[in-house]
Amino acid sequence: MKKTKPYLLITNDDGIAAPGIHALVQELKKITEVVIVAPENEKSAVGHAITLSDPIRVTCFNKGRYWSGYAVSGTPADCVKIAVGALLDRRPDMVVSGINLGSNAGINVIYSGTVSAATEGTILSIPSIAISLTTYMDPIFEPAARFAAQMVRIVLSRGLPERTLLNINVPNLPEAEIKGVRITRQGMANFAETFDKRTDPRNRIYYWMDGQKKEIVADEDVDDEAIKRGMISITPLKYDLTNYDFIHQLNQWLPEIEKRDGER
Amino acid sequence: MKKTKPYLLITNDDGIAAPGIHALVQELKKITEVVIVAPENEKSAVGHAITLSDPIRVTCFNKGRYWSGYAVSGTPADCVKIAVGALLDRRPDMVVSGINLGSNAGINVIYSGTVSAATEGTILSIPSIAISLTTYMDPIFEPAARFAAQMVRIVLSRGLPERTLLNINVPNLPEAEIKGVRITRQGMANFAETFDKRTDPRNRIYYWMDGQKKEIVADEDVDDEAIKRGMISITPLKYDLTNYDFIHQLNQWLPEIEKRDGER
Repeated sequence: MKKTKPYLLITNDDGIAAPGIHALVQELKKITEVVIVAPENEKSAVGHAITLSDPIRVTCFNKGRYWSGYAVSGTPADCVKIAVGALLDRRPDMVVSGINLGSNAGINVIYSGTVSAATEGTILSIPSIAISLTTYMDPIFEPAARFAAQMVRIVLSRGLPERTLLNINVPNLPEAEIKGVRITRQGMANFAETFDKRTDPRNRIYYWMDGQKKEIVADEDVDDEAIKRGMISITPLKYDLTNYDFIHQLNQWLPEIEKRDGER
Repeated sequence: MKKTKPYLLITNDDGIAAPGIHALVQELKKITEVVIVAPENEKSAVGHAITLSDPIRVTCFNKGRYWSGYAVSGTPADCVKIAVGALLDRRPDMVVSGINLGSNAGINVIYSGTVSAATEGTILSIPSIAISLTTYMDPIFEPAARFAAQMVRIVLSRGLPERTLLNINVPNLPEAEIKGVRITRQGMANFAETFDKRTDPRNRIYYWMDGQKKEIVADEDVDDEAIKRGMISITPLKYDLTNYDFIHQLNQWLPEIEKRDGER
């Protein structure tokens, strides 16, 4: 093991046993040294959750000769925090989160455990990317894994701006059929949500949440649309949620906000 | 019950039995009609999690004559989704999330269940605010509850821009000692995280995560600092995470990104 190889922290939200992280590691091992710290179980749609009320446990995960890592009883964000704060003896040069089964684009970005792990790396000032495959069925991970390796090489050489991560979605196509790469913005298409109301065998009511995105803007600069057209989308994200444009106007509300009861 | 009264959906992340939501409801009932849909248990630091892999259950919660609501076996974001999508027979005019015990400012915003509920309301195009009390001990909820009522009145009359919510933090002081109101931006002070490594009675290792914010910028336009100075902070947030400033530069990376293996 050469000391000069870049050192990558790999995580995901589908769990350490998921095939997507395995495909990612196999590819990244060719060019870097990797350490895997990932949730012991699937943690999809956990958003940017962290575990403060429960103890966090870490176990060694081994599956075959070339595959080992730390399985964490927590969320993707926990994995990055505990890896950097307690488990690793040196700082990783990058965090790579994925390969997620299912796209993380548009509104979904704010629910995504995959993206939250990369965000957490960015908060810790480590260049970070999230990578997802836009399917739930019959995944072809290899093109996404090779694209991840390509992006790792580029980010390691160019760096990323402060507080900025890359959110990458790769269509589930053989490499030759991918229509290209597009730099995109986060789509804002809402979900048409449905709640399927059912009765369990003990006659108690429960609900399943489901939903489909509606009104995707037909603009290939939007992540959802680029993906739909068979392109790889790369969206730069940041975690400063301030709506700066509205601050000035909100300041003009202050006289009304500051009125006390007696003055109303 | 007058039909003309505004109709408010109240939720939180401390759970439906928490004193903070009770104080909020007592105050808001004076000026509006309220419905409470909140997590059955505490859901702090759940980020913007939603429940897709488990069924969601809803039970009626009653505590005393004037206090009832729906307790949901899910996250704050689930509560807003299921309220609007399945439980309520008309759309609420606003979503109010809180009063949270503990501040939701700076980096914490991205981990906050309280803020995620207001974000979810905003996604559903309902004007939404999150309100937190900046203490964990000896809370004085009444000034925050009265301020929430004040902001509800103003937001109902003025509205909020598309995709924008207000994140409000109130210092834990008697009303007369609060130093004023400040329109702020989200602080970017990082955490100095610690992992306390312990051994359980069965000799297994576990960790407790803890941390303190470091390097808070001494600028009272930043939420954390305004709070520290005894002011109420109001930060407008949005959920488009795109780093627009970086898109142009990232487009210049494209020739390198699009190189195939053979061309390297």
